[in-house]
Amino acid sequence: MPGKRIAVIGAGVSGLGAIKICLEEGLEPTCFEGTNDIGGLWRYQESLNRLCYRMASVYKSATSNTSKEMTTYRDYPSPDRFPNYLHNSRIMEYLRMYAQHFDLTKHIRFLVHSVRKRSDFSCTDVLVETTGKQESYVFDGIMVCSGLYTEPILPLQNFPGINRFKGQYIHSCEYRSPEKFQEKKIIVVGIGNSGADLAIELSHVASQVYLSTRRGVWIWNRVWDNGMPKDTVLFTRFKTILNKFYPTYVLATCGDDLPNHIISGRVLIKSDVREFTETSAIFGDGTEEDLDVVIFATGYTFSFPFLENNATVLDSQHSMFKFVFPPQLETPTLAFIGILQPVGAIIPTWELQSRWAMRVFKALNKLPSVSGMMADIRWKRKKFEKEFLNNPRDTCRVQYVEYMDEIASEIGAKRNLPSIFLWDPKLAIEIFFGPCTPYQYRLQGPGKWAGARRAILTWREQIVKPLRTRTLICDQPPSSVPFWLKSACAVTGYLYTGYFRYY
Amino acid sequence: MPGKRIAVIGAGVSGLGAIKICLEEGLEPTCFEGTNDIGGLWRYQESLNRLCYRMASVYKSATSNTSKEMTTYRDYPSPDRFPNYLHNSRIMEYLRMYAQHFDLTKHIRFLVHSVRKRSDFSCTDVLVETTGKQESYVFDGIMVCSGLYTEPILPLQNFPGINRFKGQYIHSCEYRSPEKFQEKKIIVVGIGNSGADLAIELSHVASQVYLSTRRGVWIWNRVWDNGMPKDTVLFTRFKTILNKFYPTYVLATCGDDLPNHIISGRVLIKSDVREFTETSAIFGDGTEEDLDVVIFATGYTFSFPFLENNATVLDSQHSMFKFVFPPQLETPTLAFIGILQPVGAIIPTWELQSRWAMRVFKALNKLPSVSGMMADIRWKRKKFEKEFLNNPRDTCRVQYVEYMDEIASEIGAKRNLPSIFLWDPKLAIEIFFGPCTPYQYRLQGPGKWAGARRAILTWREQIVKPLRTRTLICDQPPSSVPFWLKSACAVTGYLYTGYFRYY
Repeated sequence: MPGKRIAVIGAGVSGLGAIKICLEEGLEPTCFEGTNDIGGLWRYQESLNRLCYRMASVYKSATSNTSKEMTTYRDYPSPDRFPNYLHNSRIMEYLRMYAQHFDLTKHIRFLVHSVRKRSDFSCTDVLVETTGKQESYVFDGIMVCSGLYTEPILPLQNFPGINRFKGQYIHSCEYRSPEKFQEKKIIVVGIGNSGADLAIELSHVASQVYLSTRRGVWIWNRVWDNGMPKDTVLFTRFKTILNKFYPTYVLATCGDDLPNHIISGRVLIKSDVREFTETSAIFGDGTEEDLDVVIFATGYTFSFPFLENNATVLDSQHSMFKFVFPPQLETPTLAFIGILQPVGAIIPTWELQSRWAMRVFKALNKLPSVSGMMADIRWKRKKFEKEFLNNPRDTCRVQYVEYMDEIASEIGAKRNLPSIFLWDPKLAIEIFFGPCTPYQYRLQGPGKWAGARRAILTWREQIVKPLRTRTLICDQPPSSVPFWLKSACAVTGYLYTGYFRYY
Repeated sequence: MPGKRIAVIGAGVSGLGAIKICLEEGLEPTCFEGTNDIGGLWRYQESLNRLCYRMASVYKSATSNTSKEMTTYRDYPSPDRFPNYLHNSRIMEYLRMYAQHFDLTKHIRFLVHSVRKRSDFSCTDVLVETTGKQESYVFDGIMVCSGLYTEPILPLQNFPGINRFKGQYIHSCEYRSPEKFQEKKIIVVGIGNSGADLAIELSHVASQVYLSTRRGVWIWNRVWDNGMPKDTVLFTRFKTILNKFYPTYVLATCGDDLPNHIISGRVLIKSDVREFTETSAIFGDGTEEDLDVVIFATGYTFSFPFLENNATVLDSQHSMFKFVFPPQLETPTLAFIGILQPVGAIIPTWELQSRWAMRVFKALNKLPSVSGMMADIRWKRKKFEKEFLNNPRDTCRVQYVEYMDEIASEIGAKRNLPSIFLWDPKLAIEIFFGPCTPYQYRLQGPGKWAGARRAILTWREQIVKPLRTRTLICDQPPSSVPFWLKSACAVTGYLYTGYFRYY
């Protein structure tokens, strides 16, 4: 059904992927973007011209927590020269290349003040406001790609005395770079990824950094066993099965440098803040520390101003079928992309969601009945409560491989592993024990790619490539110990000390 | 033989220890210090009023590479509240407490321009020059504590084109803090501890950091297995024995944060620089990178201006018996403290050296004949060439436990391990498998301490203390999985993922 018109709200990573898949599926996308550029959250802006509210932008040093092999769009690998974890400037470079390669920008309308859905939601009228004028459109489908980080949570009401505190306090979204914080005594409240990152970065310049956490967290390293990226080791089918048997409610934060900063005392872990005085914080355990600056790394929530007058589209719990479709709509013309936090890479997850949404819009895939969708939502919520700590901030968390498989099954992009074992055991072993790269979902179904098998088998080479920044010369130092003994011992030593060699 | 007068050259960490041990052994120390304060290298100075030559001072963020339990003076533990790895400001705080506690400062003469040994070295005349006047002293013994980092090596002759390079170049000793290097393209030449530290720190602010190394290096983490400090895990008698069987010629650099910065591309490893152009470096492998700043982290050498007119005291190879006594002297009245690089903590090593030197000065210990000492020196050199890469910078490296045992044996401070196994197996097991803390050399001999046994047995508690910066509240999330299964799986998960939890 070519010619179907699709509205894409937002031109960040999820919006760009949605436009691309629209075009691939023969649909006509129009993307509405509030700013004058693509990239959304990932576009670093030195000065935030208003409080980051609805215009979130990463801080200067922000770097992805998932590796590029796992993170990039399924059909557009990042250049070999790019490192395994991408700094925000690299991510922007990649997004610009992606947008240019597939000629996406011409489908985007920038500087759109507001996009509102009209109250009648069986048809998909959209009111668009740009500088000085309002326009009305009718679409066949709408994809909301406005992201998960639209509204910073600043829970001042939970911190008695914050108003009498004479120092500075900000939300982490206002943090740009460390220069202003020289020789300050700083507390970072919250040990999520932003909290850990900021604590590490600030401890290079601050006189003391405190990191306040109510319940502690497990620290994950970007660099995992054998120097491999964390996600290529952890997000495999094999470990996903193992995970079912040990507690997954523990939350992890990425912070390679944090243990070193803690053991060196540059970052001191503190319990929750009970109250602030004019110049200090008093903690839950009764201790008190003098402070100049408070940074609330207390996370974000999301809202959909697009749906402002359509309260009935989503219930108060933001119930969505598989995090994409609001079940109450008569016809599925509205899809939410990226309103979840996979414990893993986001871009491939959002791409699969987009693909599924398109196919539903095109009526190639059908959704269950309202009651069927609600039953699935309730069942998932119950499962979630077992798997994750029941924290409102975590209600959008999903296990990466499980969720990818689920959505891929919807669109027929999931290969049956036992059958692969029969005709291609080498590939099957890699699919089972190797990282669950986006290529695994291109062996069949929409977006099928002849190079997928090769890409799955050669992920190691891809990861090592950007680390080959110098030519390795093997020089054998003079020694009387036999070579075989040395080798054996080197291997033993390696296994038992576990340190990495960089050439 | 009370009343013997001892000159101590330098009031850094080795000089302070030497003064203290002098007093303990009933000798009369006079320390000559060039600056107006104690601490030597560890005293951070914001502006270096002349090139760091002979006045080396750490950069602002410098932190010790060995943990406080292993590093501190044997009879003066650092406060519980101090973290396990000490920032230079903490080390200075500790040194001031040490100097005050033992009233050492009154034995120090500050702002001494020069100290020269007279040419006749059977007697120990010393010429001291302060502002405007010369004084002459006669001592019974001299301890040279001027340190290993007196002269930066700036090997410009090995870098063709450096003179036409239009950017800035400095030696790492001139580096203070990262502010000046915002958005610069920087190369750090040399991957020793300073090189790695500077690359990590600069990569937070620079536009790109390159780290040039000829032969690569193993990266050690300050935080080792189970979150313990590296040296408490690696520097044990058990591992010292294991080390004999696997190659020790590999050199290690401390850099917890480096792998993360490399895998994220903020630090790019390059081969050796072949030449500089006006604006770039061309590397051994033919690649070229644009640069604004070159930092030569090419290390230091040492010299003894004190001995300027006494060329015959030391040969060109700086041969010293066990790194302390020049073998050519008729009577042993001159000792060098700290002219070695233990792969381990330095303060306890230097303390043991001082103790031995005092006892030789007091004639309680005897040195072998000149030929005996020379034979030992030659044998050690041969052994060294096998153990370490034969690099001129590394000629002072020794294995920590081996060297400590050797000097402790000289003064009778080394307990016989098999005999401890018989009367105190618990202690023996800790001595064999636990970290070789300085307390192990206080079980007998000079400096014997009744608390040594307890200190050896309780090292874990000491390490955990400063990490207890918040009260741990055990909260059990609701779950239907039996507790025993969760526990078993948590242990499995821990063993197989190897990440740390910080409460």
